[in-house]
Order: sequence, then structure tokens, then C-alpha cells
Amino acid sequence: MEKGALLYEGKAKSVYLTDDENVVWIEYKDSATAFNGEKKAEITGKGRLNNQITSLIFSKLHNEGVPSHFIQQLSETEQLVKKVSIIPLETVVRNVAAGSFSKRLGVEEGQRLSKPLIEFYLKNDDLGDPLLTDDQIDVLELATKEEVAVLKEKALKVNEVLTSFFKELGIQLTDFKLEFGKDESGEILLADEISPDTCRLWDMETNAKLDKDVFRRDLGNLTEAYENILQRLGGPSHV
Amino acid sequence: MEKGALLYEGKAKSVYLTDDENVVWIEYKDSATAFNGEKKAEITGKGRLNNQITSLIFSKLHNEGVPSHFIQQLSETEQLVKKVSIIPLETVVRNVAAGSFSKRLGVEEGQRLSKPLIEFYLKNDDLGDPLLTDDQIDVLELATKEEVAVLKEKALKVNEVLTSFFKELGIQLTDFKLEFGKDESGEILLADEISPDTCRLWDMETNAKLDKDVFRRDLGNLTEAYENILQRLGGPSHV
Repeated sequence: MEKGALLYEGKAKSVYLTDDENVVWIEYKDSATAFNGEKKAEITGKGRLNNQITSLIFSKLHNEGVPSHFIQQLSETEQLVKKVSIIPLETVVRNVAAGSFSKRLGVEEGQRLSKPLIEFYLKNDDLGDPLLTDDQIDVLELATKEEVAVLKEKALKVNEVLTSFFKELGIQLTDFKLEFGKDESGEILLADEISPDTCRLWDMETNAKLDKDVFRRDLGNLTEAYENILQRLGGPSHV
Repeated sequence: MEKGALLYEGKAKSVYLTDDENVVWIEYKDSATAFNGEKKAEITGKGRLNNQITSLIFSKLHNEGVPSHFIQQLSETEQLVKKVSIIPLETVVRNVAAGSFSKRLGVEEGQRLSKPLIEFYLKNDDLGDPLLTDDQIDVLELATKEEVAVLKEKALKVNEVLTSFFKELGIQLTDFKLEFGKDESGEILLADEISPDTCRLWDMETNAKLDKDVFRRDLGNLTEAYENILQRLGGPSHV
């Protein structure tokens, strides 16, 4: 597999073409952003940690019967994935109230929800990724009702697998964001990344935050928190 | 029927008890508020206009088979209604993009939607009445799935009746907000008011705004706009 031209540069990853038109080459960057890009930093090691964590999680999901765009890890900061056309909806799964959900709806952070909640947000930085109702998605024709049902089903399955996986490692999966895309055959595949950048991961004993809230809320050393997650997942040590 | 003690004072109306425990006495006030109470004014005649317009609209809906809490108009500014326990969801119906919908989702104001859209907002001034998805309503147990289905069905029926009613008067019903309550038997009834305070009403020829946007956006004389609506509805003249 040969690395080709830069296809797209995002906030946290660069995407390159390869000599296979259905495969792209992802490079994870050290950039950290929050609050729709208003807070920014370069954090050495973040790209390496998220690439390794995402690779381990997508492999785990594959073994549990959840397919994704992930093909293989190439290096500390690179991976190969299937090329998909991203559906412009961010899918959020919440098990415990936190962050914007707590603030908007006045539910105390840390309160367990009566059941897992799935939310969709329009993937649009200029609009600040607004929350969407199912009826808005339908009327604005952002996805069909059938597609929304598939996204919900897949998101709940990911939640089931990862909640029990993290629990074994002493970590509570509070909430997380997924992205999905369609491959060349039109199949909906889990895509993007699953890492401490896209999940809230709380230590079950100490309640310590081991995720991007360390950066958002200035709670300490981000790479130490992410390294902690990588080690618990059985990743290679860099200490 | 005798007017009793003040039960509740809202932004636009005062509610009094009567000698019938299932009936309350509503007095429409001249206060205008917008942007969650940040913009305020006293506008002489507004209470009279909204009381008369609401009475005419609820009577029209009754004749078309849509029951509401409305019993009868008592005076220029007063009406009798059934006492209901208000469901804490504001139900919004949109036919054409406008206001917060246009701003949040980047849909040009004036663009007709592919079909009527129903949205729910949490009735909570402190939180700024946040948008709610059906799944959030379910998980937070704000209403049952059956109740949400009833609200949607009733809101669509109101939209059907009022869209064609206003069209005959040369007015486009762009969007509107409804509130519902439960009566003593638990039946869900249309409640609150339906007036230029709670609807966007655009003149079909001139596109002039004949609703609270005149106040929100400083577009001219609010009572002239509301008087225009009352006259077209066949209400008594005060000119």
C-alpha cells in the first residue's frame, strides 16, 4: 500500500489517498481543540496515543461483531481505513449526564440516566454542531428514517460492547461521540475514531477524568490521562 | 361564576381561581416580553387584542373538532378556561423556516419545509427553554411516548385547521407554539393561547410580519399589526 496525496486535513487527523481507491491513510496529529476550535494547543504524544487507542478499540469491536472502517494500524501515528462518505450527523451516546447535556437540561453531572440516550448533532462547525431531533433530520432530509434507525441500533451495540469492556478495566464509559460513513456499496460503517478525545472516561474508583475534559477544563496532564487509558487497554508502554 | 384569588401571575396573563374548582379566570395583560424576558415593554391594548384573537381562534378550533381548555370570553381582556395541569413541553409547529430554527440550522428564513415540522422545548425559563429530542423526553421521563404521539397528532390537526383558516384571510401561518395540559380526568387538552404572541403570521401579499417579531425586531407598531389580525378574523373594531 502506497501513501498518496493529501485528501483532507481535519482538526485532529490528516487523510491521504492510497493506490487503492477504496482505502485511505490516516495520520493522527498532536493538535488538541475544544469548544468548536476556540481553545487550541499542540500536545506532543496525543496523535500517537489516539491512533493506538482507536486501533485497539476498533479491533475489539471487530472481534465482537461490530464492523468499522478500520483496516490496520501502520505505525504509532498512522492507520489504514476504508474510504467512506461521512454521514453529516454526530451520534452521541450518553449513559451518565455530563458536559453540555447537564448544562442545557439542568441534570447534575454524574447522574446515571434511566437508559442509554442517543442524540444526533449536525456536523457543521460554522453552526456549532447544533442538536437535531429525529423529525428535523427527516424534514431537512439529512438522513432517512431507516438510516437513523440503523445509526441508533449500531450506536447501542457499540455502547453495549464498550461499556462492559471499559468496566473490566475499572473505567466508566460516561458518554461518547461516533461518526458513521457509507462505503462504496452504500453500507453504513462505523468510522472516525474512538478515543479519549471522543469519549468521557471516568476512573471507577477515584472518579478521575481520563479524557479530553482534562484539556477542556484544565484538570492536569492530558498525555498522562491518555497514557493511563492506553496502558489499561494493553497497549505498548512509553514510560 | 365568581372571580377568586390570584392563582398564578405569568409574563402575559394572570390566572384567578373561581367558585368552580375545575375552572379558572384568565386576564390578559399588556406586558410584552421577548428573548426569555430580556426585552420587556408595556403595550396598551396588547392584552385586549390577544384575548379577543385567542377567543376567536379557540372557538374556530372547537367548531372544527379540536377541543381546548377555552370555555368563553368574559370581557375584552378576560376569558374563562378549564383548569388544567400544564405539560412542561412547548410544542412548536413549523411550516416555513424562520427565527431560531433558521439561525440554528442555517436554513434561510422564508424557505418552505418539505412537510410540517413539530419540535418540543422544555418549558423552563432558567434554562432558556432548550430544544428536546423525543429520546431526551423519554429518558428524562418528561412525558411518555404515548403522550408525545398525542401531542404530535393534536398539533398537526391544529396546523391543518389554522393554516387553511389563515390562508382564507390572506395570511401565511409560518410557525406557532402550543401548550397542552391535562384536565381533572387526565385528558390532554390544548391550552394557553394562540395569538400573534405565539404565532408567526405573514401577510401573503406584502410579506409583512403581523406578529411578535414586530416587537422582537423593532419593525413598527405592534398594536396595529395585532389589530390587523383581529379585524381579518372578524373581531370587533376599535378604530
